Amino acid sequence: MDEERWQGPMRELADRSGVSVASIKYYLREGLLEPGTATGVTSARYDERHVERLRLIRVLREVGDVPVARIAGVVRAVQDRDLSLNEVLCTAHDALGPEPPADAGDARAGARREVLEHLRAAGWNISDGAPALDALAGALLGVRSLIDPAIGPAIFDRHLTSAFELASFELDSISAERGRDSAVRQIIVGTIVFEEALVALRRLAEQHHSRRRFAVQDQSGEQAAR
Amino acid sequence: MDEERWQGPMRELADRSGVSVASIKYYLREGLLEPGTATGVTSARYDERHVERLRLIRVLREVGDVPVARIAGVVRAVQDRDLSLNEVLCTAHDALGPEPPADAGDARAGARREVLEHLRAAGWNISDGAPALDALAGALLGVRSLIDPAIGPAIFDRHLTSAFELASFELDSISAERGRDSAVRQIIVGTIVFEEALVALRRLAEQHHSRRRFAVQDQSGEQAAR
Repeated sequence: MDEERWQGPMRELADRSGVSVASIKYYLREGLLEPGTATGVTSARYDERHVERLRLIRVLREVGDVPVARIAGVVRAVQDRDLSLNEVLCTAHDALGPEPPADAGDARAGARREVLEHLRAAGWNISDGAPALDALAGALLGVRSLIDPAIGPAIFDRHLTSAFELASFELDSISAERGRDSAVRQIIVGTIVFEEALVALRRLAEQHHSRRRFAVQDQSGEQAAR
Repeated sequence: MDEERWQGPMRELADRSGVSVASIKYYLREGLLEPGTATGVTSARYDERHVERLRLIRVLREVGDVPVARIAGVVRAVQDRDLSLNEVLCTAHDALGPEPPADAGDARAGARREVLEHLRAAGWNISDGAPALDALAGALLGVRSLIDPAIGPAIFDRHLTSAFELASFELDSISAERGRDSAVRQIIVGTIVFEEALVALRRLAEQHHSRRRFAVQDQSGEQAAR
């Protein structure tokens, strides 16, 4: 392919990757991007691998909102061919954060145990160190605090079922047959880009359903027909 | 109910709401919380409405990660009885952000039009000013940049269907019959807390499916049976 053969100076690299020269220099300094091949005292030649790396960094930054400090971990995982695809996926999840709260407290630790037990009872094979368990525990505490302290993890069962089916569909579409690089790219797309898409689509769907129901309801006192 | 009748000093308010005295003072200064009834030169009495407000602020902060500056907008929307429930929902979405990127550029504007047209063709009744459209356009550009520039918005159709069904289920569970305050609380739970729960559940489900597939595959060279 033409793309595989491209080589050129930093300015062309910026054009091809959509990343500014200033940002490229910053990523070089931070070690997120390997140096090009020196062609003079102050110039270097870059190739298609640099373009791919920059596209990955850009998606992590712009779509996943991942801080530069955490991008380094993802980049290392992508490069380290000794890591299993499962480990790459876990690294991407960790990079997305957020950090579990330092002052977790008893209530959160209890809620965390409850959601973990609930998921395991549903047959989910998950690590008890997963950061997403903290987020789910926080969500459960939020529902309890705003609606009813007696609510249990089953409140999320509808979302649990959808999440299970979506994740299965996403993982099915990752083919290891086309090589590790392709599979790793698809894992990043799956974990980070599809998450953003799902969140955005859910908000837009809420807007659609809300307009149909509340907009009419507020005017006429009756709920709109679905 | 007992809860409706509670009145007490700031220290008790802190205990009941789970918000520290320092944070309560901060929210009072920022106008997120209305002052209590003065009982002396430096003391005041608070009531159950203060507890409820603090619980709402806490969920926005801790679960939704909403910046204090944006919480004010949600608090105003919750209080303003002239706003329709649909407007409350839109305010909550806006508070969750993120801000659309300032340097949007032609590519993003084009992707934004594409996803809007795709959703409208699917029958979604959504405003073309919705911030989630920018996020969805960013996700589409991310897939194109990492996988294939020819990919269209239909790549998200599976997620679109799930999001549509989940949002319908969530909105169904919001009952306007128990009064506006209850409905507004449920909207906040629906928009913010269930979003966090869905994201966390999807990551955990990815971990489950990934372990079943990649972990075994990487050791034996064969894919685990589903």
